Amino acid sequence: MSHLTLVKVGGKIVEEPASLQKLLDDFAQIKGYKVLVHGGGRSATRIASQLGIESQMVNGRRITDAETLKVVTMVYGGLVNKNIVSGLQARDINAVGLTGADMNVILSDKRPVKDIDYGFVGDVKQVNGGRLAELIKSNIVPVMAPLTHDGQGHILNTNADTIASETAKALAAYFDVTLIYCFEKKGVLSDETDDNSVITEINRQQFSRLVEQGVIQGGMIPKLENAFHAIDAGVNQVIITSSDTIDGRHGTKIR
Amino acid sequence: MSHLTLVKVGGKIVEEPASLQKLLDDFAQIKGYKVLVHGGGRSATRIASQLGIESQMVNGRRITDAETLKVVTMVYGGLVNKNIVSGLQARDINAVGLTGADMNVILSDKRPVKDIDYGFVGDVKQVNGGRLAELIKSNIVPVMAPLTHDGQGHILNTNADTIASETAKALAAYFDVTLIYCFEKKGVLSDETDDNSVITEINRQQFSRLVEQGVIQGGMIPKLENAFHAIDAGVNQVIITSSDTIDGRHGTKIR
Repeated sequence: MSHLTLVKVGGKIVEEPASLQKLLDDFAQIKGYKVLVHGGGRSATRIASQLGIESQMVNGRRITDAETLKVVTMVYGGLVNKNIVSGLQARDINAVGLTGADMNVILSDKRPVKDIDYGFVGDVKQVNGGRLAELIKSNIVPVMAPLTHDGQGHILNTNADTIASETAKALAAYFDVTLIYCFEKKGVLSDETDDNSVITEINRQQFSRLVEQGVIQGGMIPKLENAFHAIDAGVNQVIITSSDTIDGRHGTKIR
Repeated sequence: MSHLTLVKVGGKIVEEPASLQKLLDDFAQIKGYKVLVHGGGRSATRIASQLGIESQMVNGRRITDAETLKVVTMVYGGLVNKNIVSGLQARDINAVGLTGADMNVILSDKRPVKDIDYGFVGDVKQVNGGRLAELIKSNIVPVMAPLTHDGQGHILNTNADTIASETAKALAAYFDVTLIYCFEKKGVLSDETDDNSVITEINRQQFSRLVEQGVIQGGMIPKLENAFHAIDAGVNQVIITSSDTIDGRHGTKIR
């Protein structure tokens, strides 16, 4: 199978002009088939605030009422997405911006109300890997916004990490997939106070031991759990790294 | 050649939920290949105003400074476009939202500054008809926002009527194209005070005579000139009609 690299970048990187340009330069250098999944939360919060809409977050997730849905649809699907697409076109990468509604690539269910009503938030139900693979094989580079749809005419706000992992899993049937999660550190650290203490490779046994030892803790645990789920679902490797180093040779490799 | 219908609708129709639903129902009924081009100016003006940005119009065209460009990128490329795409998906139409940057379908040049500096406004340079035709023949329905790009990383605000006519011309090499312009009247009227005085068909000779006679005047003259240009460039027919009647059987047919 051909190799495909799926890079997920958070809002901070794609929202600042200088870091966006650097990211696009680096992304353009990646050889072979590729996909970019982006966030945009900071811009959404800023523009919501300018429009007099207060951003309510619970456990790091945005409560998405009807007005907030309009903001994220504008910001993720419009502003952030089209800046990336035009920036990639300028680098001769034939990008296409997609939400889950476009070509019906990602269907989701509105999250059921339990303790918290997240509003117009979608949990991914199905990624149309075949459709995406067809596009990708015709040398188009999907740039995916963190928005999906319910098939009934509603756009739903959807976590970008989830879109990245579910898309990577769906594409694993067609490609040899490397999933790269960018975050603010150089990788999984063995010493949180030392940015250079990157663990270069980790398997499930090592992960369990490091959690037991308290070396890996907090938000890194679900991140790594997700990475192992992606591996179980056929993704070849997951890399957790800084957005400065998306060449596949840096960060922490999970296999 | 297969038949293709390209419908252009203005902002008013797509921005009001009830008229949008009706339009999408009608558009879904159109048989054969199709494309939708939309505006969104009213929403852009409203959201710009909420963000404290004044909308400056000259000859009906928006002066697009850097802040206004962000607004139209959000509103046209995000809010309006994704509402249409998700609404079409709910009607089993496999739509994809596109700006000119997406798949590089429309390249434009930033309008040169003469008497007026329109800012980040693009004049269409090239429509990639082959790429669009390929998509369309795989049963995808492009939903085109009035935004293009310059190939150097900049999104440019672009007149939706122009996008419609230039796209229709480019697709005429691949399809037998009907271009439908929706506006607030039922068609070209022989008596401006009588909404039912629709001229059902008009050719260039009749047009010249009606202009001489003062029957056709004002903004309708450039609209019809554009229609005849499209015909000259290979478009099979142009229809000017109300958004209520996009079935190809109503309004004024230009051949």
